Amino acid sequence: MTTSNPTPTPQSTELTAAVILIGNEILSGSVKDANLTYIAERMTEIGVRLRECRIIPDEEEVIVDTVNTLRNAHTYVFTTGGIGPTHDDITMRCIAKAFGVEVYRDAATVEVFKKHYGDRATDATYRMCDFPVGAKLIHCKTTPAPGFSMGNVYVMAGVPKIMQDMLDTATPNLTKGKPIVSHSYTAFTVESRISVAFEEIQKQYPQLELGSYPQRIENQPAVKLVARGADADAVVAAGDKIRTLLTDLGAEIIAMDVRP
Amino acid sequence: MTTSNPTPTPQSTELTAAVILIGNEILSGSVKDANLTYIAERMTEIGVRLRECRIIPDEEEVIVDTVNTLRNAHTYVFTTGGIGPTHDDITMRCIAKAFGVEVYRDAATVEVFKKHYGDRATDATYRMCDFPVGAKLIHCKTTPAPGFSMGNVYVMAGVPKIMQDMLDTATPNLTKGKPIVSHSYTAFTVESRISVAFEEIQKQYPQLELGSYPQRIENQPAVKLVARGADADAVVAAGDKIRTLLTDLGAEIIAMDVRP
Repeated sequence: MTTSNPTPTPQSTELTAAVILIGNEILSGSVKDANLTYIAERMTEIGVRLRECRIIPDEEEVIVDTVNTLRNAHTYVFTTGGIGPTHDDITMRCIAKAFGVEVYRDAATVEVFKKHYGDRATDATYRMCDFPVGAKLIHCKTTPAPGFSMGNVYVMAGVPKIMQDMLDTATPNLTKGKPIVSHSYTAFTVESRISVAFEEIQKQYPQLELGSYPQRIENQPAVKLVARGADADAVVAAGDKIRTLLTDLGAEIIAMDVRP
Repeated sequence: MTTSNPTPTPQSTELTAAVILIGNEILSGSVKDANLTYIAERMTEIGVRLRECRIIPDEEEVIVDTVNTLRNAHTYVFTTGGIGPTHDDITMRCIAKAFGVEVYRDAATVEVFKKHYGDRATDATYRMCDFPVGAKLIHCKTTPAPGFSMGNVYVMAGVPKIMQDMLDTATPNLTKGKPIVSHSYTAFTVESRISVAFEEIQKQYPQLELGSYPQRIENQPAVKLVARGADADAVVAAGDKIRTLLTDLGAEIIAMDVRP
């Protein structure tokens, strides 16, 4: 299911990814993560299956252990957060430690900083010119401070706009799988009414993920039924059966979503 | 830092928690998690430190392994998702497997269901009356289908309103630590300008977590500086120093937040 190959050339092997959101602020509830969904959507588009996400504090041992566990278990690992100029920004040096390499100051980035920041740059600013030896820098238009990749680990900023820019820069160079397609229908009903018939559809299409997500819409119970997988024909067929199931029940379909 | 005691009586030991969000839909990007922040805020209020969150797919082996890893590492574990009546709702039986116990059908819950649902109840509905042997049910006003705790693991629904209700029901019975207090200031500035002085404040208060979170507000760079910890006097003092730091810089303070 997963591969430990850091430079993947998979054809038959499924491509998988893990996300590590680094930051005490998310675990304290003071900041809501705004990055996972964006990464998840991009992985879906390029046919890489996002298998897990871990949200961890800004602590060296935890970061190093988590990076090493996940980089050996997945094709790609994406981290967000902790690469700025303050004392709690320790992600870069944790990545160096995880890979057992030294940190160097990148002369080209220093030059860019001198031009961009001029006199406003402090010693702290220049910390963002430091990278693990062997890192490939990820330049982006939003900021002169690059992200970087190290092996199969992509290290990005926590600020959503910058993270998105960095991921968009990195994505063209990732190995692509078969795009993961989904058809979903949301209807005013409850799960108990659809669960037997829905499970029957799952049995007919074992290669797909069929999921049911209860919610409240306009203060009424509603359910979103999703068929998802790399077999696009099967997704369309299963989606049709879901629609028929809901129509036969007399459940009002209030939304349909086809991705990508 | 963590305790493996499932029935905690900690005075000196720090109380810690982990959250497991169970659901393919979050990892596919089709549903945004709306539960973590609520749990994080409640833990902060009762002085339990949320140390990590894992988002994992609806897969038995992954759920069982994750539950067993985290319940041995933390005072409390909270799971959300996967306890409804559809085939992808496998959390309950994974918890039973993780604890090595059988599943039973709770007669009292069956009676409640008969009254509440009447003829609308199907076999699938009654699956929500099944629990691991030894579970303590968590009743709540939003739904007749209970959540449950098993040892130090609290198993809750994925629908935010129901999850919140279940957590609020469970919270009074949790062991409380010293409340975690935070003072934070958001100002129009950039991290490079504050990082040296901010690190100095961290050195003066090693018992606190001082965090810096860059953001964009009204399309201008802003930074939120947070002092956080169980030593309330130190938080107030560090907060004052943060405010002075920003004022001395001439950075406009646009928000202040004191919790709880």
